[in-house]
Amino acid sequence: MTRMDAFRRRMQGLAYGGDYNPEQWDREVWLEDVRLMREAGVNIVSLGVFAWASLEPEPGRYEFGWMDEVMDLLHAHGISVNLATPTAAPPVWLTHLHPEVFPIREDGHPFGFGNRLQYDPSSPIYREYAANITTRLAERYSFHPALAMWHISNEYGPTAYNEAAAVSFRRWLRRRYGTLDRLNEAWTTRFWGQVYTDWEQIDVPHIPRTWMNPTRRLDFKRFTSDALLECYLAERDIVRSFRDDVPVMTNFMRFYRHADYWKWAPEEDAAALDIYPNPADADSHVSAAFNFDLFRSLKGGQPWMLMEQSSSAVSQWRLNVVKEPGRMRLGSLQALSRASDSVMFFQWRASRGGQERFHSAMLPHSGPDSRTFREIKDLGRELKLLAPLAGTTSRAEIAILFDWDGWWGLEEVFGLPRSDFSYTDTVMRHYTPLWERHHAVDVVSAASPLEGYKVLVVPNAYLIDDEGVRRITEFARSGGTVLMSFFSGVVDGDNRVRLDGYPGAFRELIGAKIDEYWPARPHESFTVEFADGSACTSTWWREDLHLESGKALATYRDGLLAGRAAVVENRYGAGRVVYVATLLAEAAFDDLVADTVETAGVRPRFPGVPAHVECAVRGDERHEYVFLLNHSGEEGASVPLAGEGTDLLTGREVRGRVELAPLGAAVVQVARPA
Amino acid sequence: MTRMDAFRRRMQGLAYGGDYNPEQWDREVWLEDVRLMREAGVNIVSLGVFAWASLEPEPGRYEFGWMDEVMDLLHAHGISVNLATPTAAPPVWLTHLHPEVFPIREDGHPFGFGNRLQYDPSSPIYREYAANITTRLAERYSFHPALAMWHISNEYGPTAYNEAAAVSFRRWLRRRYGTLDRLNEAWTTRFWGQVYTDWEQIDVPHIPRTWMNPTRRLDFKRFTSDALLECYLAERDIVRSFRDDVPVMTNFMRFYRHADYWKWAPEEDAAALDIYPNPADADSHVSAAFNFDLFRSLKGGQPWMLMEQSSSAVSQWRLNVVKEPGRMRLGSLQALSRASDSVMFFQWRASRGGQERFHSAMLPHSGPDSRTFREIKDLGRELKLLAPLAGTTSRAEIAILFDWDGWWGLEEVFGLPRSDFSYTDTVMRHYTPLWERHHAVDVVSAASPLEGYKVLVVPNAYLIDDEGVRRITEFARSGGTVLMSFFSGVVDGDNRVRLDGYPGAFRELIGAKIDEYWPARPHESFTVEFADGSACTSTWWREDLHLESGKALATYRDGLLAGRAAVVENRYGAGRVVYVATLLAEAAFDDLVADTVETAGVRPRFPGVPAHVECAVRGDERHEYVFLLNHSGEEGASVPLAGEGTDLLTGREVRGRVELAPLGAAVVQVARPA
Amino acid sequence: MTRMDAFRRRMQGLAYGGDYNPEQWDREVWLEDVRLMREAGVNIVSLGVFAWASLEPEPGRYEFGWMDEVMDLLHAHGISVNLATPTAAPPVWLTHLHPEVFPIREDGHPFGFGNRLQYDPSSPIYREYAANITTRLAERYSFHPALAMWHISNEYGPTAYNEAAAVSFRRWLRRRYGTLDRLNEAWTTRFWGQVYTDWEQIDVPHIPRTWMNPTRRLDFKRFTSDALLECYLAERDIVRSFRDDVPVMTNFMRFYRHADYWKWAPEEDAAALDIYPNPADADSHVSAAFNFDLFRSLKGGQPWMLMEQSSSAVSQWRLNVVKEPGRMRLGSLQALSRASDSVMFFQWRASRGGQERFHSAMLPHSGPDSRTFREIKDLGRELKLLAPLAGTTSRAEIAILFDWDGWWGLEEVFGLPRSDFSYTDTVMRHYTPLWERHHAVDVVSAASPLEGYKVLVVPNAYLIDDEGVRRITEFARSGGTVLMSFFSGVVDGDNRVRLDGYPGAFRELIGAKIDEYWPARPHESFTVEFADGSACTSTWWREDLHLESGKALATYRDGLLAGRAAVVENRYGAGRVVYVATLLAEAAFDDLVADTVETAGVRPRFPGVPAHVECAVRGDERHEYVFLLNHSGEEGASVPLAGEGTDLLTGREVRGRVELAPLGAAVVQVARPA
Repeated sequence: MTRMDAFRRRMQGLAYGGDYNPEQWDREVWLEDVRLMREAGVNIVSLGVFAWASLEPEPGRYEFGWMDEVMDLLHAHGISVNLATPTAAPPVWLTHLHPEVFPIREDGHPFGFGNRLQYDPSSPIYREYAANITTRLAERYSFHPALAMWHISNEYGPTAYNEAAAVSFRRWLRRRYGTLDRLNEAWTTRFWGQVYTDWEQIDVPHIPRTWMNPTRRLDFKRFTSDALLECYLAERDIVRSFRDDVPVMTNFMRFYRHADYWKWAPEEDAAALDIYPNPADADSHVSAAFNFDLFRSLKGGQPWMLMEQSSSAVSQWRLNVVKEPGRMRLGSLQALSRASDSVMFFQWRASRGGQERFHSAMLPHSGPDSRTFREIKDLGRELKLLAPLAGTTSRAEIAILFDWDGWWGLEEVFGLPRSDFSYTDTVMRHYTPLWERHHAVDVVSAASPLEGYKVLVVPNAYLIDDEGVRRITEFARSGGTVLMSFFSGVVDGDNRVRLDGYPGAFRELIGAKIDEYWPARPHESFTVEFADGSACTSTWWREDLHLESGKALATYRDGLLAGRAAVVENRYGAGRVVYVATLLAEAAFDDLVADTVETAGVRPRFPGVPAHVECAVRGDERHEYVFLLNHSGEEGASVPLAGEGTDLLTGREVRGRVELAPLGAAVVQVARPA
Repeated sequence: MTRMDAFRRRMQGLAYGGDYNPEQWDREVWLEDVRLMREAGVNIVSLGVFAWASLEPEPGRYEFGWMDEVMDLLHAHGISVNLATPTAAPPVWLTHLHPEVFPIREDGHPFGFGNRLQYDPSSPIYREYAANITTRLAERYSFHPALAMWHISNEYGPTAYNEAAAVSFRRWLRRRYGTLDRLNEAWTTRFWGQVYTDWEQIDVPHIPRTWMNPTRRLDFKRFTSDALLECYLAERDIVRSFRDDVPVMTNFMRFYRHADYWKWAPEEDAAALDIYPNPADADSHVSAAFNFDLFRSLKGGQPWMLMEQSSSAVSQWRLNVVKEPGRMRLGSLQALSRASDSVMFFQWRASRGGQERFHSAMLPHSGPDSRTFREIKDLGRELKLLAPLAGTTSRAEIAILFDWDGWWGLEEVFGLPRSDFSYTDTVMRHYTPLWERHHAVDVVSAASPLEGYKVLVVPNAYLIDDEGVRRITEFARSGGTVLMSFFSGVVDGDNRVRLDGYPGAFRELIGAKIDEYWPARPHESFTVEFADGSACTSTWWREDLHLESGKALATYRDGLLAGRAAVVENRYGAGRVVYVATLLAEAAFDDLVADTVETAGVRPRFPGVPAHVECAVRGDERHEYVFLLNHSGEEGASVPLAGEGTDLLTGREVRGRVELAPLGAAVVQVARPA
Repeated sequence: MTRMDAFRRRMQGLAYGGDYNPEQWDREVWLEDVRLMREAGVNIVSLGVFAWASLEPEPGRYEFGWMDEVMDLLHAHGISVNLATPTAAPPVWLTHLHPEVFPIREDGHPFGFGNRLQYDPSSPIYREYAANITTRLAERYSFHPALAMWHISNEYGPTAYNEAAAVSFRRWLRRRYGTLDRLNEAWTTRFWGQVYTDWEQIDVPHIPRTWMNPTRRLDFKRFTSDALLECYLAERDIVRSFRDDVPVMTNFMRFYRHADYWKWAPEEDAAALDIYPNPADADSHVSAAFNFDLFRSLKGGQPWMLMEQSSSAVSQWRLNVVKEPGRMRLGSLQALSRASDSVMFFQWRASRGGQERFHSAMLPHSGPDSRTFREIKDLGRELKLLAPLAGTTSRAEIAILFDWDGWWGLEEVFGLPRSDFSYTDTVMRHYTPLWERHHAVDVVSAASPLEGYKVLVVPNAYLIDDEGVRRITEFARSGGTVLMSFFSGVVDGDNRVRLDGYPGAFRELIGAKIDEYWPARPHESFTVEFADGSACTSTWWREDLHLESGKALATYRDGLLAGRAAVVENRYGAGRVVYVATLLAEAAFDDLVADTVETAGVRPRFPGVPAHVECAVRGDERHEYVFLLNHSGEEGASVPLAGEGTDLLTGREVRGRVELAPLGAAVVQVARPA
């Protein structure tokens, strides 16, 4: 039994709760808290996330009394604790004693005091104090009966251009490159005459006069992610050294560019996600779906944890719109539909002051007699009905490539043919038509195993290392279908151009050589004609592409590339490759994606269901759980459903068709054939 | 007789003149200056505002000779002097000797040399040198016959994040809070774990990693205003110690966010305003009117001083449009109409070089044979005719709340449901319909006495302390009408949410509980229907409002709040409260304001006069002076006027009706019934 | 025979090549390089521009072996070398040892390592090391047979706010002003009380609290240009001291604001230009034409060198569009048409990594079998046919004023009536109608001799010194035509207003006094009527102008200046002055320019040729070379051509008419009458 199996058993199904910060409130409030938690069905809270200053008010002086009391109180009410190491919030005394702990900005300036995450992750001072408080906590609470999970620090993220970071960066580079000659080669330092002759000459990449060496920048991103990971590992190993059977995690963030989660996830017992889809953005549930799929995929399909969401509005944007009635429940079900085993919030009770006083909570400023708290209680009741979901998951036939090296290559670095790429936008552009057609999708990195997939989607994979190239090539050779879009395979893992005709990595795979990349002028558009005579416009990008073994699936009808291929099909080994060399108009691209996927033998599971009704499935060897989620706030839907089962939310039998109100949902349990 | 009474007697009516900087010019120019001043009717100049470097060219070496000569010359020509302490412009030797005097920016960087106001107001060094030059000036000129007034420094404003500011800020916080426990409570430092355990840990709020503790930020604004005020008081007390019967002031600015003028004004003999309405902005005269009302109100209705305006274009914007012929005169009369006792300019003679060489002056680069100087002379002649105005003032039945705590709460702090509030815009939104209907309005702070007013207008008073809440509540209870708009009464004086249902401060007053604030999406609009069946749109903001004792004056016809109250009326004690919970379309809001005011028994004094003809009245026990000011540059106006009187500008009798040319004006003296 | 005559002889015509950075590649690549260079017709490369780190990997340790080899290899293949001092790219060891060499930014912060030009030009340390490596290079290669030219450093440009810069700035100011009194007068430091009493008090102009003293800012621009020039001169003098008969240059940039090229050009053997017209900008060839004219004019009409251009896309912008087929050739011919004696590129071979890896090169990533390299070879062939052009030039009848003082006055300084002037836009606005009508134009500074010109065009010459005023005035007096536009002649060389009526410098010349400048409101427009009854709109600017000796060529029909002059004509001595006091609509302004020029007796050489076909002529005493360049990528053109000659590109006889394909060109050699 894994640690997470034990955890699920303890939860008796799904985990429900949120961050709990009792140190902000008086004792009498705590009593109301536990009473209302029970009323709401809460079975777990994350405790102590920002409590360092309350636990160690002066260096070496500890105040655990209040936490003892809270732990006991929670336990007495049957509420488990996800106990946080409080190291995301170094107390003022630490940075007052050691100002060098403050992260230095890219322009060379330190930040002032007054936030969380105000530390240089490479700082030995920070690491020492963090290890100490972690040890104290572990000593005291490892065997407390309320303890169900360790929550290591919070939303790891700070980038620091400090001297300690420079020391650490040099160490990291030595490990990566071994010799300066190899570093100089990888960074192409002969360009603009920047050859390093001593390791000590290498500094963190403060803003230079114009723009930065792209590989130095890339390596600094990699290093920063690794430096943060070291912080995590140090704390994890401490709590493990006291007790080995409690799961340990840290909470990640939606589309977070500064840490390579593919490297982190294996070090956690569960991938855990904080996500705040913007209710003012009509499509935010689609990118939520992608992130849910990512988090399920990060640990190879294991159920993950929704660690933070908001009950209604947040406060970190200039405009913070509320979640309309029903939207919070629907978003929670959506996470469950893609294999989350929890629904958790930041935070239990809305703060009275401080930066996030208007961030909504399970228990809002207006108290228990409020729309929000009523919805929280209703959801708590429903989650009990959904207990069978716990531990189940899903597996797709389609994989989409999403990794941090590719992201950093496209966005962290200046000097591309165009420097307004958005990696997440391009990934969502590829994911959306699959989502709209209710296809299940897994997410993979360039290092993931690809066996078992029928289709691999590769959106603008500009930077990809040799191992990634090998895996993709091998996938196609052995019969897979690859859908790849433009400006992929251009540079190697050192951000150096693969020479002798683009795309160096994939020239043979796509069956074409590209002479030059031709970004389009603003407002310029082209007509692209498909083999079947249909036509669409394209914009933003073209490629001066010469077919080799490939053939044109579509050609330009106008412009200087008239008659030349815009979409290429290549047979490669036993596989099929479709390469899209321009930005096709949305509808045409969506059709191409759908067609490519179906040609590869992936059958739509939910034909005829409108796009706004999200369909997702998780299950185990005995049951499937079919989620039908109506994201429209205006329209109901009558959804055909093959087979028969039970809607767990209502307990009613379902056969042939399910009726959904606006924002309505069904979770249909279907028995698998034995 | 007050100091200002004596001053008015000395002026023999209104004060007319401007900043005079003879140190920029040769002696022969001075002679032309006084000749032309007399020609223009100038009776006072502000002398020495930026003259520190000319008076004390090296530390401890003084050159008063030139100023002696100028004072004598002015006196010989009958021109009085408003003598400035030159401390707004520390000489280069001071900051060269003591670079720590330069203000440090929010990002931790010092400013370079090359401006006025380049000092940290908390710096003991700056304060010592400033006290010294002030003492020297006072010693020498306190009894010079030209001296009519002291002008302490100039446009107090610098914010500094220096070490001296930090020391001073800690002292200020100790005075405010007494103990760290109370500070930690007020600042909610348990949030994100930022508890202070030693006063020395508290720093000025340099930019942190993401965003700033809202109460720390608020207190730093308060502190900075107080630190500047200390500088003012120190210099004022020095000049007072030499001679007690000369009025002392400093010049304030239009809508200036960085100093709480309500705290400053009691320390001055007259409130004095520098104002530069932008001629490119078609409504700038309306916000000018508001500022004039504010300055009259700052000292409880005493006549104030227009200390600086421009004769034509300024130079501080990217686009600096001239005042068309007649506009400068009209703006001058407008200030007088709202109880200014002076018309003064920056500056007398246009500078040849330096940063403001293209800022227009009474005497422009093109010399006396110029449009501008002709208008200056014409205005001088007219001001003599208006001498009876001096010392008269006005009192309104309507008060509007405008204070700095409220401003800082809405704008200096991030993390609100929406963070694009403009306090001055919302105040002007409430003031404009009153201005357009020619209602007289006073301005009040949360600490002002409210007796005697019929209506109190409260625009978006997000932050209001307990005393303010008490005053407003009491005002309604005893029969006043309160018109309050949304997101008022949310937090206390420590920027902490008033719990248990918004608006904590005013839930009983407005007769409703608000569950959640619902800012609108961009481009989202709603239909609001009034009791009389009329409807309008609203945008930007809604509130999930539940009526308690209040009743709906208007409800939403559509959206998720359909049928719910958008405007609430509540009877409270003997009073009436109208609470507007959304941003109504302009015309509907204007009608609501007009209706609320008239329902409260405030009768329009100038019915039927078009909006572009501003009507304002000042007077004393014997006379009223009715100003009719046509702000249209294209249209004339025929204005009905009850009663009869004399137009002081023309000397003509006025009966029943006044004809105004485009940009025309009349100042009708009407005898009060005995 | 000048050094450049010798150089041309060595080139046997035009120079063709580019930057060559062999240190980025292995030896086997070098052999391919020289083979392909010969295939392309390359006869010169710029070597070692960024090679400092490769030549002196540690202080005092030199590695010349690779360069010896490359020089020998090039020489063996008949390719000459423009040998660079590598001082634009200080090695990391230099700034690591001496961080004070890094330029400090305006806000007081140093830049980080990682670019070229990362030095303070005033730094004695930098200068010492730069002199040393220059000496070593000169010792070793001055008499190498491949050496054809010295390329001193690269694109001089860094501005530094360092302490060394401050020391140097003070020295520069002492030389300029002699005494502090004169400096204080010139800078008008009495304004805002900023009088300097000790030279040591003067600092570089770090960002002050609001805005900067305009003359201090202006002088700092002048100083920075001079400091860079000192760097150039030091290196030039070193290489000259070894050998005096090799030409020496440095490469300048298109519309580069930070160095006053009029002061630099006399110190070079040839003016050399790096230019990257943006293919996404439809008019970039017109500003290219202006820059080509400027570079020909910088050294009084001597042929200049196109030192860098790109073969296709660059990589320094957010969007980098390729040059369509034919565009690179056309741009190259365009440079030749305006008296370039070279066509050179950055760079020979595209870099694999580093900041500019996507900057196109003569030999692209896709190798010799590529569109780009084919076009490079084709151009190489054509350039051989154009060898007779070498050494020929042109001389115009029209001159346009363009200088750096005027530029800095309008753009580097805040506080003008409007601060959104663009000097280059206004110059292009005046140049474009002349270019469209195929008029030849020279460029002059305020210090250039004006004899021989018929027309002088003066665009918005806000700042002009007394000597410039004298030259322009004298030019008109002796019969020249001056076309001057608004806001000219306002301030003197110290940025101080010329008093007693604008435009102080030119009141007599234009025959009018301007009382006030009236910038227009956004979207405001006026109707201007010409003497012939035609009318047009004007925007952006008006002047309250009073005619003296001048008469109105056009008047306002509406607005507050109705009936007043908008365009003035004045007879001055034997000359004619046309003064344009508003921003006329484009077509009307173009007609006015054309009319003014023709009235002055300048006859169009190419009447009837459409605007998109550029016509330019260079020649010597025996031949004229008429360039016809069709910039349209869509339309061909049939161009009438008086006389007969030979198209050097085709070898065909031309008589009466030339047919041009889209992007087509002809270079017609016409014999001059003996």
